[in-house]
Amino acid sequence: MDLRILGEVGERNLIDVMMRHLTPMPKTPMPFWDDVSAVTIGRGRAAILKADMLVWKTDVPQGMTPFQAARKAVVMNFSDLGSKGVQPAAFLVSLGLPRGLTVDFVEEMARGFEAGAREYDAYVVGGDTSEAGEVIIGGMAFGVAEEKALMKREGARPGDILATTGGFGNTAAAFKILLEGYEAPPELRASLVDSVYMPRARVKEGTALARSGSISASMDSSDGLAMSLHDLSRSSDVGFRVERLPASPEATRFAEMHGLDLSELVFYGGEEYELVLTVRPDAMNSARAALKEVGRELIELGRATGERRIVYYDGVEEKPLRSGYEHFK
Amino acid sequence: MDLRILGEVGERNLIDVMMRHLTPMPKTPMPFWDDVSAVTIGRGRAAILKADMLVWKTDVPQGMTPFQAARKAVVMNFSDLGSKGVQPAAFLVSLGLPRGLTVDFVEEMARGFEAGAREYDAYVVGGDTSEAGEVIIGGMAFGVAEEKALMKREGARPGDILATTGGFGNTAAAFKILLEGYEAPPELRASLVDSVYMPRARVKEGTALARSGSISASMDSSDGLAMSLHDLSRSSDVGFRVERLPASPEATRFAEMHGLDLSELVFYGGEEYELVLTVRPDAMNSARAALKEVGRELIELGRATGERRIVYYDGVEEKPLRSGYEHFK
Repeated sequence: MDLRILGEVGERNLIDVMMRHLTPMPKTPMPFWDDVSAVTIGRGRAAILKADMLVWKTDVPQGMTPFQAARKAVVMNFSDLGSKGVQPAAFLVSLGLPRGLTVDFVEEMARGFEAGAREYDAYVVGGDTSEAGEVIIGGMAFGVAEEKALMKREGARPGDILATTGGFGNTAAAFKILLEGYEAPPELRASLVDSVYMPRARVKEGTALARSGSISASMDSSDGLAMSLHDLSRSSDVGFRVERLPASPEATRFAEMHGLDLSELVFYGGEEYELVLTVRPDAMNSARAALKEVGRELIELGRATGERRIVYYDGVEEKPLRSGYEHFK
Repeated sequence: MDLRILGEVGERNLIDVMMRHLTPMPKTPMPFWDDVSAVTIGRGRAAILKADMLVWKTDVPQGMTPFQAARKAVVMNFSDLGSKGVQPAAFLVSLGLPRGLTVDFVEEMARGFEAGAREYDAYVVGGDTSEAGEVIIGGMAFGVAEEKALMKREGARPGDILATTGGFGNTAAAFKILLEGYEAPPELRASLVDSVYMPRARVKEGTALARSGSISASMDSSDGLAMSLHDLSRSSDVGFRVERLPASPEATRFAEMHGLDLSELVFYGGEEYELVLTVRPDAMNSARAALKEVGRELIELGRATGERRIVYYDGVEEKPLRSGYEHFK
């Protein structure tokens, strides 16, 4: 009997412990416990499934509306599909709701689910409500994909180019504003805070990249860029050397303004939904072209390496990157 | 702004309110918000999805172990698939867990998910954990089905025969034992309490009946037999006249022992996972044969009627059936 409490163990170890008791589904086209689950449905296609929960008390920052929280529950599930190259088709929701909540609050959430789903050309197809002590949004995403086109956490090789679909640091800066009272001029503040309240999933980016066949490994950065690099490293058995900080212009300005370490904002933010990718060197043009088609630019930040270390070279020295945020810890 | 609280409104109205804000998916083979959701995947097949949440405080009766609760979270989701004639393939789980919970508790749950899934020839394919104030099990079931074979809540016609896949009353009797201190001889007590702790989903029954093509409407009885009749009535626009009480032998004995009204146990129990079905009169032999093949007997209890009243005729008079359990109320 393992009587340690979850606070001592952390989410990652907990999931490892749970997996020991589960029989993996045979012939599944995705490794067990990648970012999404896949079930073969014949003719080279797979059903792609993702379930992730948003807990009001833990996951909803101050000032976020019920509409925004509901929309985010869609975005965080669709982001995982997008990061595998999968177009979401449907969203389901199980709501846990306290009895004293107003109907208006729940209607606001319904509008948020609808807005989130339609934004990505998907539909809310079902759901259920239960009585609970706090607001819980159990979200679930479904899509269909060609098995061969799926982008996985595994597949990166030493020498592959490390890239992202966008700049980092906005959410970390926003949390400094929302939780620690940091200030910023109105326009900058609005744009940073928007990254937390209205995150975007890189679905069209992910599906375009998957179609291009240029990506060797991919996942989203919802647990922070550093944690994503650790996860890709573990799954692909490579290391990473980051040589260029993929900082957003807003985070850069915010860091300068407050004398903050920009790399801390970039690596350890979390709740950012960019894709973290590796690309074979000879496929870079194709990856760039695929992203350009959907109006985005590929940001190169470094290389996959043969040794399982994850470092950031800031021009002077190599610093190891910690793994980042984790539930219960 | 609707500032009524959920306790005043009830789950059914709440879901109606939410649905007003949602765009139904076009060309879906199941009506919006039947017991499961369906998404067309081509060649006459559909992905069948269900998400339902188990909240420890509200849904887990005293004495139920983490293993049993986890297994039940699988059963309640698979039961909905089974009631539509769909074989479940996969289960996903989002867990909300308090930080002070032991690892052992979560391992017990992992064993429960595995046992529940394997019992119905499916696999646990993924999941996630979040920190929450109470234990929340967000379950999600997936299966693939022939669209034409799906059994829906709608489709019953006046004159159709009303039937179930098993007897009722065990869970209501068990709740009297567990929550109100009623007594029963050890063997009877064990068998009643087992109906609550180790419920069974009628998956092989549902898939056999769907293959037989003999069923005009179907749903499970998780909210109680009376509530299921109300739901079928609303979806199919028929009424029901129950002429024979589908009581289990155990519930009958328990009611006699304590001088309880057996019909109350049978109609208003809830957490029972039998299928409630309507059958065209000329298809009764085929329905009976389909169930017999999987080792069960079809229990006839009455008829669908043209008038939207739901009554139980006890041999003396017709009594209207109330609608039954609902969250928040």
